[in-house]
Parts: sequence; C-alpha cells; structure tokens
Amino acid sequence: MLQIINHGNVRELRLARPPVNALNPELVERLILTLRESAGECGAVVLSGREGLFSAGLDVVELMQLDRDGMKVFWRAFFELQETIACSPIPVVAAITGHAPAGGAVMCLMCDYRVMSDGDYRIGLNESQVGLIIPPVLQNAMVRLVGPRIGEQMLVAGATVDSQQALKIGLVDALEPAYDKTISHAIEWCQKLLSLPQHSVLGNRAIARAHFKQEFAENTDADIASFVDGWFSDETQVVINSLIARLKAK
Amino acid sequence: MLQIINHGNVRELRLARPPVNALNPELVERLILTLRESAGECGAVVLSGREGLFSAGLDVVELMQLDRDGMKVFWRAFFELQETIACSPIPVVAAITGHAPAGGAVMCLMCDYRVMSDGDYRIGLNESQVGLIIPPVLQNAMVRLVGPRIGEQMLVAGATVDSQQALKIGLVDALEPAYDKTISHAIEWCQKLLSLPQHSVLGNRAIARAHFKQEFAENTDADIASFVDGWFSDETQVVINSLIARLKAK
Amino acid sequence: MLQIINHGNVRELRLARPPVNALNPELVERLILTLRESAGECGAVVLSGREGLFSAGLDVVELMQLDRDGMKVFWRAFFELQETIACSPIPVVAAITGHAPAGGAVMCLMCDYRVMSDGDYRIGLNESQVGLIIPPVLQNAMVRLVGPRIGEQMLVAGATVDSQQALKIGLVDALEPAYDKTISHAIEWCQKLLSLPQHSVLGNRAIARAHFKQEFAENTDADIASFVDGWFSDETQVVINSLIARLKAK
Repeated sequence: MLQIINHGNVRELRLARPPVNALNPELVERLILTLRESAGECGAVVLSGREGLFSAGLDVVELMQLDRDGMKVFWRAFFELQETIACSPIPVVAAITGHAPAGGAVMCLMCDYRVMSDGDYRIGLNESQVGLIIPPVLQNAMVRLVGPRIGEQMLVAGATVDSQQALKIGLVDALEPAYDKTISHAIEWCQKLLSLPQHSVLGNRAIARAHFKQEFAENTDADIASFVDGWFSDETQVVINSLIARLKAK
Repeated sequence: MLQIINHGNVRELRLARPPVNALNPELVERLILTLRESAGECGAVVLSGREGLFSAGLDVVELMQLDRDGMKVFWRAFFELQETIACSPIPVVAAITGHAPAGGAVMCLMCDYRVMSDGDYRIGLNESQVGLIIPPVLQNAMVRLVGPRIGEQMLVAGATVDSQQALKIGLVDALEPAYDKTISHAIEWCQKLLSLPQHSVLGNRAIARAHFKQEFAENTDADIASFVDGWFSDETQVVINSLIARLKAK
Repeated sequence: MLQIINHGNVRELRLARPPVNALNPELVERLILTLRESAGECGAVVLSGREGLFSAGLDVVELMQLDRDGMKVFWRAFFELQETIACSPIPVVAAITGHAPAGGAVMCLMCDYRVMSDGDYRIGLNESQVGLIIPPVLQNAMVRLVGPRIGEQMLVAGATVDSQQALKIGLVDALEPAYDKTISHAIEWCQKLLSLPQHSVLGNRAIARAHFKQEFAENTDADIASFVDGWFSDETQVVINSLIARLKAK
C-alpha cells in the first residue's frame, strides 16, 4: 500500500495500492502516520507513485459504502493528511510519476516542490466534473501556485492539464522524461536543501508556509461539514454513481 | 441602450448606447436590473459592445452635471453594478469587442472570463491620467488578474495596453481576430461550463469568488465617500473639465 | 557614503560606501533621513549603487561587534528603512547597477520599480545560506513580486538569480546594458510618472501600497525580537563567523 524507500537522508514514500493508488481510509491513515514518523527520522520526504500514475484520487467505490459518520471521519482524515504535508516540519516533494487528478493533485499542491514525468499525463482538480465542491483551503492551495485567474477558471471547470501545460502555468515546477529521473530529480532537490544550514532553511520555510497552518485551523470544521453535506446530496450521488458505473464498465 | 440577445441558454447583453457606450446612471441601472433578472432566466451571461469599442467608461459629460448627492447615488450604483457582476450567481463573460478603458475595463475585471478582439484596441484603468482615484476593491480586482507588481505599476501610471499585451499579462484570457468570433468564443465558453454538473460548477465558483462579496461588504461605504470627495476636489475637476474640452473639440 | 545627485525633480541617492556598499548602522540611518527629507524636496527618488554592485547587504563584520541591545537598535532601523521606502509618499525606484544580494535585494523589493544592469550580476534573498531567517513582512515583499510558488522556493533555498532570470520571474522590471543607462532608465521612469496629475498618481499609489503600512505596523516588534534571537543563536553565529572568515581570506 505504501512503500518506504530510504535514499540516505531522504525518504521516498511510494504509493503502491493497485490498481490506481486510490485514497481510501486506510491509505490516508497510513500516509499521515508515516509522514509524522518520517519527520523525526529523515531530512526530507518524496511522495511518488507508479510509472504512469501518481494517484487517481479518492477511492469513490469504497467511500460510497460509508454512512454519514464514516464519511465525516474520512474527510477529516483527508484534511489532516493535507495539513500534515503542508505543515510538515521537513520538506515534502512530489514526484508526480504520471496522472494526478483530484485528490492525487491535492497532495501535490501541498508539497514544497513538484517534478512531473513528461508525457500525456493529466493533473488538476477535476472535482467540478464529478459533482464535488472543493473547500476553500484546498482551492487556495491551487491559487497559490497558478494565481487567482487561472486557478478560478480551472477549479470552476474542473479542468486538468497535461505535463507541459502544468509546467507552463506553474502547477508543477519541473518535468523529467522518465519515471526514474522523476524520482531522482525529487531526491536531488531535497539533498540540495539538506546541504544548507538547516535552522535557517527550516525557519524561512516555516514562515513561508505559516498561512497553511492558519487556514487549516480556521476552516476545517465548517469545510468538513459542507463537504459531507454535498457528498450526500442527491445531485452528487447521481454523478458519483454514474462515474462508478463508467469505471466498472471498463 | 442595452440589447438582449438570447443564444440558447446563454444571454448576451450588448452595450448599445452611441456613440461610445458610456456609462451614465441610466445604463448602469439598466445593467444591474438586467443582470439580476438574467440570473433566474438563463445559465450564463455575455457582456459585449459594438465592433471596435466595448465601453469608453464613465459618461463624464453627463456626470459633471450631477451635484454631490447625485454623484453619491451614481457611484453607489456603479459599485453595485460591479458587485452584481462579480457576485453573480451565474457566470458572466466579457466579450471585449474593442477599446475598454477605465469603467469599461472595470466591468471586465469582474467577469469570469475575458475574450478580446485582437487589434489596436486599448484596455486598462487609466484613471490616474484623468485625475481619478480607484478604490481598493476595484484595484484588487485588477491585481487579482495581473498580480501585484504589474497591477500596481499599471494602476499608478494609469496605463492601458493593447490586446496582445493584455493577453500576455493575463488581463484578458484569449484573443479572437474578428467581432463575431469574439462574441461566439464567449458564448461557447459559457456553453462548455453549462454542460457540466451545475451544482458543483456553481459551488466551486461561489468559493473562488467569495472574497469579492467580503470586499464589497467591507469597503463600499468608505470607498464611495472617498471617491465623491475626490471627484469634487479642485484638482480633479480641472483635469476632467480639460478632458471634456478635448472630447468636445474632436 | 551616500551621494545626492539631483536630476531636475528626480533625486538620485547613490550608495557610495566602499568597498561593497554594505549596510551598517550609519548608512541605514543616513538613508532613512535622506529619504524623509527628499519626500518634501523632490518628486521621486532613485536608489543606485556603483558599477557592478548595488549593495552587498548587511555589514556583517561591523554588526558582529554589536551586543544584543545594539543589534536590536540596528535591526529596528533596518526595518524602518524598508518601511520608509515602501511607504514613501513619493515613488522610489531601484537602479540596480550590479549585484544585489540579501539586504541589498530587500531594499529593491520595497521600491516602485526596478531596473537592473544586464550581466552576470546576482540578486536574491540568500539569507537561508548564511543562517539568517527572513521576517514575514520582508518575505511577503518578495512574494508580492514573484508569486508565492517561486517566492517560497527562492526564500527557503536562499537562491539568487542573474539579471536575465530576475527579469523573467518579475524580480526586476527591466534590464539595461550599461551602468549609465540603468540610472537614466530609472530617472526617465520617474519623469514619466511626474508628468501625470500627481494627486491621482499618488492617491492610486497610496492605495496600492496600503498593505505595506499595515504589515509593518502589525509585525515589526515580534519580527525584531525573533531576528535578534536568531542572530545570537549558536548556529547562526557559527555560519556568520565562517562567512566572515571567508570574506577576510579573499
């Protein structure tokens, strides 16, 4: 479900939940715990996926089996995962080894740096297309990277972009031609940071990311309630059920 | 004064107040009312102008005849128009069919998307050049599109740019070579959004634009008072009177 | 230490403290006083340096001789200098005539406009590399120009860029091939602004820069205390002492 691969002082957490690294309650919990442990055991973390796919986002099939309380618990954990990445005491880098839609993209937004495999891979918050509403704190994380104009337009349309376009608009920071290169680029980026005085690197980083802590603290409860209400609305259930029917038909 | 043209579920509001689609109290009021009505009657709105001119902005000749109370009423309505666009429950797109200086540009800033006719047309908030001070909520709408650096420099200098430069800096989102294409591009952009699940499109859109509602609520009264004081200051009256003299000499 | 050269209504303040225009308590104080005086005596100010060097930033050799109280006084003055530039009642333009690392770059961030000599000159906030933590209000000034994504990454890594890259990311607004051209470009930029109605130029400018006043008012005391604590921390003293050893070995 989650492979841990140490590269010296840099720890790679490789999503390994076939077939599409979908985020179910267990994987989200595992990510939170492993990220927290890692902060005391290494200097930086790389999140990666398999060749051609980083993560397809939420495991809607499994989540549709949850009742309202179960969904509330899951969504709180999903928020906690994003906060754990964004407010991590050590740098977290996304090695986006392929497609990264929806919840897969959200994790990338929270990272310090994003390197993506170049190719016909899509990244973006396509929630609008599947009937879901993205809470403010997650929208802001997108806007932080691509600006309010492009951010609003992509979020409203549920648009995804390919790797070249992602680089152009700042949704990712660099491209690499192959799977291995994507991961090694991420590791080298971490190693370069780790060669600098850590008290100033981490001190400056904490200031640059302080707004995340504040946003998560202020908004989480209301956002969770809204999202769960939306999830169980008739309109959203219809869209998700037809999405699941399409997935199963494949 | 304002033509209403329905294209299926997309309603075009075409500014038609010769010679320059200048915004006087009557046109501003008509726009507010028509936008509000449209929100219940169609899925999206396109604001357009005539070939070569979107709107020249405020009708300074008519406004100079207003006393302080009249100007206060007008300026409150002008703010209300901008809030009506920015906080519209349905998308509003600007088909910028030509020049769009000052108040003409302000309306465009509030829209969800801007497509401009490519050509030697100018767009920008040139208020600094004609002695007027742009309230914070309108400045912020500019900065939202082009960023704080370019935004400040353009606002302070009262700079306008041509269509190519507007695209480059993000002041508009797309260019089209001809009048008809500009309008049809805007309509198609709306139609694409209307093909998606509307509860999530509109839900995500409301979150992306929530800051507008807050800014208009917080700032309007003080901003109106400041603007009216500025309008009746000796310096501004001199600049506007010389502007009117130049317009009449044409 | 600081040459005053009047070009009509534009006053150039040329940093002239050999060998590297390092900011010591005396130069910072002189800059604050001269900027304040200038606001009543001219229409705009240009800050410049010598050919190949704008300013190397803080005079760490001299500052290392200060005790905690002395450092507190200096750092408060350094903040006051930045606030004096950012909140100046008249425009201040940076003619970045060469290298501008650390404190040299900070002054440039506060200006209305930045023109840099094209060449192998570096600009950026490299504090992370020398063990120093950049307070929020100064980080925000960087982010204001280059955006949150590039801003965070440069601030955390203590990265500097050359003139071409600085132009590309918006850290500077224009390049000029030679020393004289850099200064005359800055003067001409001011003259163009001075040809417009000053009440609206300065009124719009005050609104565009109002956030600076608020940020300096809210954060200064806590930021000064943090910085001084950091300066006297063991880790920072080690890094600065080794920096000074390297400087002396040259």
